[in-house]
Amino acid sequence: MTAPDPFARTRALFELPEGVIYLDGNSLGPLPRAARERLAHVVAQEWGGLLIRGWNEAGWIDLPARVGARIARLIGAEPGAVRAADSTSVNLFKALSAALALRPGRRTILSDSGNFPTDLYVAQRLAEALGQGHVLRVVAPETVEDALDSDVAALMLTEVDYRTGRRHDMAALTARAQAAGALTVWDLAHSAGALPVDLAGAGADFAVGCGYKYLNGGPGAPAFLYAAPRLQAEAAPALAGWMGHAAPFDFVPDYVPATGMDRMLAGTPPILSLSALDAALEVWEGVDLAALRARSIALSEGFVAALEGREDLVLASPRDPERRGSQVSFRHPEGYAVMQALIARGVIGDFRAPDLIRFGFAPLYNTPQEVARAAAILAEVLDAAAWDRPEFRRRAKVT
Amino acid sequence: MTAPDPFARTRALFELPEGVIYLDGNSLGPLPRAARERLAHVVAQEWGGLLIRGWNEAGWIDLPARVGARIARLIGAEPGAVRAADSTSVNLFKALSAALALRPGRRTILSDSGNFPTDLYVAQRLAEALGQGHVLRVVAPETVEDALDSDVAALMLTEVDYRTGRRHDMAALTARAQAAGALTVWDLAHSAGALPVDLAGAGADFAVGCGYKYLNGGPGAPAFLYAAPRLQAEAAPALAGWMGHAAPFDFVPDYVPATGMDRMLAGTPPILSLSALDAALEVWEGVDLAALRARSIALSEGFVAALEGREDLVLASPRDPERRGSQVSFRHPEGYAVMQALIARGVIGDFRAPDLIRFGFAPLYNTPQEVARAAAILAEVLDAAAWDRPEFRRRAKVT
Repeated sequence: MTAPDPFARTRALFELPEGVIYLDGNSLGPLPRAARERLAHVVAQEWGGLLIRGWNEAGWIDLPARVGARIARLIGAEPGAVRAADSTSVNLFKALSAALALRPGRRTILSDSGNFPTDLYVAQRLAEALGQGHVLRVVAPETVEDALDSDVAALMLTEVDYRTGRRHDMAALTARAQAAGALTVWDLAHSAGALPVDLAGAGADFAVGCGYKYLNGGPGAPAFLYAAPRLQAEAAPALAGWMGHAAPFDFVPDYVPATGMDRMLAGTPPILSLSALDAALEVWEGVDLAALRARSIALSEGFVAALEGREDLVLASPRDPERRGSQVSFRHPEGYAVMQALIARGVIGDFRAPDLIRFGFAPLYNTPQEVARAAAILAEVLDAAAWDRPEFRRRAKVT
Repeated sequence: MTAPDPFARTRALFELPEGVIYLDGNSLGPLPRAARERLAHVVAQEWGGLLIRGWNEAGWIDLPARVGARIARLIGAEPGAVRAADSTSVNLFKALSAALALRPGRRTILSDSGNFPTDLYVAQRLAEALGQGHVLRVVAPETVEDALDSDVAALMLTEVDYRTGRRHDMAALTARAQAAGALTVWDLAHSAGALPVDLAGAGADFAVGCGYKYLNGGPGAPAFLYAAPRLQAEAAPALAGWMGHAAPFDFVPDYVPATGMDRMLAGTPPILSLSALDAALEVWEGVDLAALRARSIALSEGFVAALEGREDLVLASPRDPERRGSQVSFRHPEGYAVMQALIARGVIGDFRAPDLIRFGFAPLYNTPQEVARAAAILAEVLDAAAWDRPEFRRRAKVT
């Protein structure tokens, strides 16, 4: 007798295309049925039927906080400490500018080369634009701790490396940064919904993350933003707007920030996209995050084990599953062409220059059976062609 | 024989609720049928069916430029000079920060008391955060020209006052600002789709505007951003992100801005909301903007004429239709209660503290007949109650 699979229930909540093994949920999560149904309702009944009254009668005005509350459980945030709105880049800008303002006199934003390029762009331009001598310093992931000197205002890291899946020790690095007098800004883009996160337990200062990867909120879904309760009363992001005002409907000319987390909001959020994210998060109700992590490890370990020993693949992820997120990457010199061949066979992963083929494992809908099948197809693809032939050369240049 | 009504065709493209006369399209435009249909397609076929491949195969990646091109015609922008993404506040922040950087040595952001409060908040926080002595100076609308001194880096104005409908002379003020060495940042939230705008003809520098008012893109629809072609190569907003990089898919660590207008983009835009806006803009195909303006004036003049002479209403908008946008406001000491009574009768306008009742006229779907009916219902509401009785007092405090 086999124990029932707790994730068969959640898989059935998604509309997955026939004939596809989807291992790219860390780029864009698939469509939850609830999101499709909610959007149809929001468009026809709320927008179409209520018109402007939807802000109050359909509760649009509270969506950033309501969606934030759903996300809070997944990332171990205190009640009321998360808002959903804007893009990850915009939220990172808000968090980072607030962090710098809380550490006057310090001039360094410390990050690592495993961070998302876009996070580095945000930090670089913010540092330049402030005109106060701030610099972005980017070090190797394993040297972050040593680089925490007395000039570091903010340690800005992505917990799980988007290419390799390598996971930082959030609690240890947060403690180390705070001991050095710095604030932390964590990007949870490849963490939220992929593994349990404990922001409160780690004592993190600020965090941001993505709505469209493991949270399945749809393409370009609004992102989220966290500030520790102890910082909310003094956090002052450089980017403000009416949604962050203490009295947004008084339309007074002077900016007075809201007392709590609302001050991290700016302009009007995209309600259609935010509603889809809200509905997508319903899938998480009743999901045990420890079980999610166990399933994630079972999936990635099964994939690695099936391919281990192949001389044409180099594991780019940590071998120890505790040290990685919910994804596995291999290096292959013709990675781009290999991934194209895989996609043609119905296995959708991703390629990251120069030579990484990347596979994300989403426990909500990926099954051990399809992961085993994906590994078998990858082996077949690798065995079927002489990948060292010249015609495959230079295809690795993705545009 | 009556000439055919060119706007009967466009009205039929909207799904308007029965029994409602909707005069609040300047807060939230109604649902275009095409937006509902497009969203259903984007969700089921593109997100659900294509998954990550939607970025290329459904053209999501080009949506900010494609939607921008649709808007460009409505605001007289040069080809390629408009992008749709983010909120109006975020776009204003980008434009204003870029303008300030182009005028080093100058420290004043000049605006007026007729601007949106949220625009003033954005400017105030940006000025403070830069830490370089920038100040936001807010003067009365009629004194803007006199306040243009040699310290003004950016003149930031909303063309049409959201409360009164009073319209600035964009061409004259732009010329005057530039003669004083300043750059202009225009907010077109109550202009785009309400009346013809000629950014290129006026020589405007930067502009932003709203997707959910007269453009009917849905609640919180992405906003738009314009930079004059002559400024695009040097504009450097403080807020950056991967979508504004010269090679966004190379994932290189250093930020290199795109050569053209793309550099004004930041993070990933909300594709569902942006797709709804794209479809909503199809309604504008074939619409003659001079005819739109003529219809707008006919609607607002009909409304004013029907109510002129009432001693209990004070016109808060310019009496000359050439000097206002596509909206009319009256002052009434019990404006809040009057508007509630109107809404209960099916006439949806808006209230703005302390005493303004506001009516927006959208030529795409409002008809002369319903505007006449709305005026008659307003007169009935005003005649039906003793509005100076104490029980109506102090209701004007909206929350």
